[in-house]
Amino acid sequence: MESKYPSTVLQDAVESISSLPGIGPRSALRLALHLLRQPSENIRHFASAIERLATDVRYCKECSMICDGDVCHICADSKRDRSIICVVENVRDVMSIEATGEYRGVYHVLGGIISPIDGIAPSDLNISGLLSRLSHPTEERPCPSEIILALSGDVEGETTAFYLYRQLEPFGVKVSTLARGLGFGDNLEYADSLTLGRSIAARQPFCP
Amino acid sequence: MESKYPSTVLQDAVESISSLPGIGPRSALRLALHLLRQPSENIRHFASAIERLATDVRYCKECSMICDGDVCHICADSKRDRSIICVVENVRDVMSIEATGEYRGVYHVLGGIISPIDGIAPSDLNISGLLSRLSHPTEERPCPSEIILALSGDVEGETTAFYLYRQLEPFGVKVSTLARGLGFGDNLEYADSLTLGRSIAARQPFCP
Repeated sequence: MESKYPSTVLQDAVESISSLPGIGPRSALRLALHLLRQPSENIRHFASAIERLATDVRYCKECSMICDGDVCHICADSKRDRSIICVVENVRDVMSIEATGEYRGVYHVLGGIISPIDGIAPSDLNISGLLSRLSHPTEERPCPSEIILALSGDVEGETTAFYLYRQLEPFGVKVSTLARGLGFGDNLEYADSLTLGRSIAARQPFCP
Repeated sequence: MESKYPSTVLQDAVESISSLPGIGPRSALRLALHLLRQPSENIRHFASAIERLATDVRYCKECSMICDGDVCHICADSKRDRSIICVVENVRDVMSIEATGEYRGVYHVLGGIISPIDGIAPSDLNISGLLSRLSHPTEERPCPSEIILALSGDVEGETTAFYLYRQLEPFGVKVSTLARGLGFGDNLEYADSLTLGRSIAARQPFCP
């Protein structure tokens, strides 16, 4: 009875909400009380939208992207170039690259990144699925000519990229990675020296 | 299929989460993808904690505070002073006042505040419950000798306080309100002139 919360139901809701990243107990209380003021059907709708993340989310059998059916809308799109596979860490990366509108190939979602500190080994990632796309091509899924490793520029990303490169080498496929350098709109003054140094070393012809 | 989201399940979850105050679509996507990475039982537990806000929350029959049983732990506490009722807008206000440890009376939760702009009339608030505590005292619930109107200092709060004062006047009960003035630790330079002016007018003897 000497809990901080007047009701165990409220307490459970606050504890659940504050388990989300970036939401502390005070914000969680504010959100829980906001929900409490909504009509019951809104609260139920909210809860069921969350629950369906556990029950109804499906993954593309080609690329492991989340989707509604067997195959995601990208893999199902006959206008996409199946000869290029862009390997990314997660679902959000696919959404980010799609938002650029610059890429017309298909994807492969690893579902994580090699990270010994977090206990994530290569076997925890969907790497075998990627290799089988090279070793067992079919008519709808021809052997790709290029694999783009679109991974983060941190240690885990570099480690994963190196590991994948070693695995892909025997297939003789072209392996590329994202261009690294100064971001568009970036100020030289605030660029880190590693990025700036690499940008100078990998300078490109000026195209006005 | 040309939705921003690769899955309708994800989209529904993002839309539900971004309906919460202060959470935009980008944060909602981040939270939904975070949930998606959790084990199913965690997602289900989260969803059920939210759903129980719709189904299992109960309100104290004395003061309308949310609670687990028929009566909240404050009204059930025999050490609380039943002769003083502190009238507040909502559940959070009770928690805030309880956190100060300064108040030993009981509460009455209005469940809102009079606000013509938001279409909230006196009849939408739990005012009759407050009046019946004065008009129909019982042995466990004696007639209070003082009512504290602990409402916000904005127009809606003042309006509600004035309305309640008019309703309470016939009972001859002492009606008080929160002290207004400069907050502890407040800098004079940043105080609004209304608060500062009232603080001078209502100056108090210096007690070192």
